[in-house]
Amino acid sequence: MAAADPPVISLTTDFGLSDAYVAAMKGVILQINPQAAIIDVTHDVRPQAIVQALYLTQSAWPFFPQGAIHLAVVDPGVGTERRALALETPRGLFVGPDNGVLSSALADETRAQLGEAASPVALPPGYRAVSITARRYMLEPVSATFHGRDIFAPAAAHLSRGVALDSLGEPVDSIIAFPPLRARRCADGSLRGQVLHIDRFGNAITDVRAGDVPAGRFAIELRGRIVHGPVLTYEEAAEPAALVGSSGYIEIAVRDGSAAAVLGVAVGDEVSLRPDA
Amino acid sequence: MAAADPPVISLTTDFGLSDAYVAAMKGVILQINPQAAIIDVTHDVRPQAIVQALYLTQSAWPFFPQGAIHLAVVDPGVGTERRALALETPRGLFVGPDNGVLSSALADETRAQLGEAASPVALPPGYRAVSITARRYMLEPVSATFHGRDIFAPAAAHLSRGVALDSLGEPVDSIIAFPPLRARRCADGSLRGQVLHIDRFGNAITDVRAGDVPAGRFAIELRGRIVHGPVLTYEEAAEPAALVGSSGYIEIAVRDGSAAAVLGVAVGDEVSLRPDA
Amino acid sequence: MAAADPPVISLTTDFGLSDAYVAAMKGVILQINPQAAIIDVTHDVRPQAIVQALYLTQSAWPFFPQGAIHLAVVDPGVGTERRALALETPRGLFVGPDNGVLSSALADETRAQLGEAASPVALPPGYRAVSITARRYMLEPVSATFHGRDIFAPAAAHLSRGVALDSLGEPVDSIIAFPPLRARRCADGSLRGQVLHIDRFGNAITDVRAGDVPAGRFAIELRGRIVHGPVLTYEEAAEPAALVGSSGYIEIAVRDGSAAAVLGVAVGDEVSLRPDA
Repeated sequence: MAAADPPVISLTTDFGLSDAYVAAMKGVILQINPQAAIIDVTHDVRPQAIVQALYLTQSAWPFFPQGAIHLAVVDPGVGTERRALALETPRGLFVGPDNGVLSSALADETRAQLGEAASPVALPPGYRAVSITARRYMLEPVSATFHGRDIFAPAAAHLSRGVALDSLGEPVDSIIAFPPLRARRCADGSLRGQVLHIDRFGNAITDVRAGDVPAGRFAIELRGRIVHGPVLTYEEAAEPAALVGSSGYIEIAVRDGSAAAVLGVAVGDEVSLRPDA
Repeated sequence: MAAADPPVISLTTDFGLSDAYVAAMKGVILQINPQAAIIDVTHDVRPQAIVQALYLTQSAWPFFPQGAIHLAVVDPGVGTERRALALETPRGLFVGPDNGVLSSALADETRAQLGEAASPVALPPGYRAVSITARRYMLEPVSATFHGRDIFAPAAAHLSRGVALDSLGEPVDSIIAFPPLRARRCADGSLRGQVLHIDRFGNAITDVRAGDVPAGRFAIELRGRIVHGPVLTYEEAAEPAALVGSSGYIEIAVRDGSAAAVLGVAVGDEVSLRPDA
Repeated sequence: MAAADPPVISLTTDFGLSDAYVAAMKGVILQINPQAAIIDVTHDVRPQAIVQALYLTQSAWPFFPQGAIHLAVVDPGVGTERRALALETPRGLFVGPDNGVLSSALADETRAQLGEAASPVALPPGYRAVSITARRYMLEPVSATFHGRDIFAPAAAHLSRGVALDSLGEPVDSIIAFPPLRARRCADGSLRGQVLHIDRFGNAITDVRAGDVPAGRFAIELRGRIVHGPVLTYEEAAEPAALVGSSGYIEIAVRDGSAAAVLGVAVGDEVSLRPDA
């Protein structure tokens, strides 16, 4: 697959912006490919929060140019035996540790049979991956504590210059992935899931997909409270109300305020949605 | 007006950097115009704080290249009937919701007669605006909750490629604007205004324009305290003192400390300046 | 020395990202050199914390392309008689106030004889510096409060276009620098230093250089606690343990947690390292 022109590399990490870690990665990228356009997704993932990183990259990368390279480094296992991956898909390239953080590169159907925890899934046709092992495409010496700088950034930068995926290491048939972030449908017709993310506005974004919700009004129960929906816009939410958020998930919002604060909601809280009686 | 070459797009939002919203906007821009240089003004505007966004963009855009495109999305009315604007001025292009956030694109003289609240003002000669309505220049489908990604970013990106302003929608004769951020001169010769902004250092920036202050020493009253000025540099402010800040407003600072904390000052506090007795 | 192509300018400041200061600097750079690639190191240096800025730039700039221009503005003396410097080195150009913030541009050997405080050091062969005084390369008018925008950003941008160093002002023979960030070896064989930095993960980074530590296991005393090392990876640190961090310093970490919080450690705390008994 051809890289975007000029090449685009997106970065998602839990490194924050108060340290120099992200800058070191960008310097390494520009040393290898001075033409690369580097775009931050976020560096504010909670330390080691792989699923949060997965949600955030999933909300961003589909809007990037065809052929962009998406680097995601949330890597509690840095320096251990966990593999370093480069993954080619029909839409773009993904680089990061093999711990599930790259899951959103795979379609939901591919991940539908996975259990709740991250586990290996076979790559479907059209997808190829390698375990990055070629020292010539790493920064020397490779530290045991910062593969973002020493392995992942160089790999992304070399890919952006057109280095072949296979040059970076050995092919792998499966990668670690999480199941889709998607509430499950229960026998009683309800959708049961959880709060995926609280955004800056205090909107509580659930894992209930808008497309899974039957037409008509519905009620969401969370923290013992009932919230109704859908409303169309934030402005209509004079009281906490549910609406279709911009990532295609049902979210709970309140106008000019934080629904999460008003309702006392946190990431991971259970939600249950059913048609309004 | 010719776009800057390469095209420059500045971004000001209240989306923060912990979510993927800003990244989605940048991805959309690069999909449409891979050559665009995207520069963040800030994404840390307080949620829905239109006047703060106005102050911050006003402090930044005059330093950008001629022809740059300034995107400002603080948009509590997203999805409602409020218009989406693209505005061409002699200095650059401005894109954002029609709620006053683009006010600084218009000269003070244009806005001088406005009352305290945001209200419509006729565009002066040399300024043109459209209400963005052309679906072909939007991302499909257009969500009701994220026009930054679906309408404003695409409009800015298309403009940066040379798409004509008129192609984006219908011409409008007036836009919503705020009056100039400028303390008023009172009959007793004092200048009365308010604290516009507290910056990262704790400097309390007032809306008193340096050019409005008579020569010689003066005193500012705020929160029942008197602060004198001007000093020339922060280093001279061993005690809280007033000086001409870098945006042309009088600000109150203290060396190696936060004047706002020392004085207990907040945004919106009233200030009164008069010549020193 | 040839600039990187395209030219790269890194930025390190204490301006934060909530104000428009950094954006104004970037706008100024792009007005002068639209081709410049601007990379943030960090803007989250604690206000006026010159040594922290020195540590962070030192952790980033060696990973940037040859010929990159590194702008560091932590400038409590803005507007006073302190000089504005542009410094050419074999690896890149450095621009900032003459208060020690550019120290990492000079090799350790050059700075080895300096006392604890910042003091003047003669430039070694291969290094040249000027005091920036040429008004034609400044933004007009020059404020007394924001030389980052009015002097330093223009200087970096002009250098990135190939303007000769000497054009910017008068040559200087020495600049203010700090001694190397490096624990001292004591008569009893221990290494005594301090905590340099707490990173986002709560890792406590000391000024003990990995290369200064004898082979074998060692113990670090800090805050009356003893921490052992080295472990190789963060994952091995089930209890707080010492390891070689990515910048070549010994740091103290704990798996899935903040060592700084667990141990109650702060920047500046004394540390002492000796071989394990």
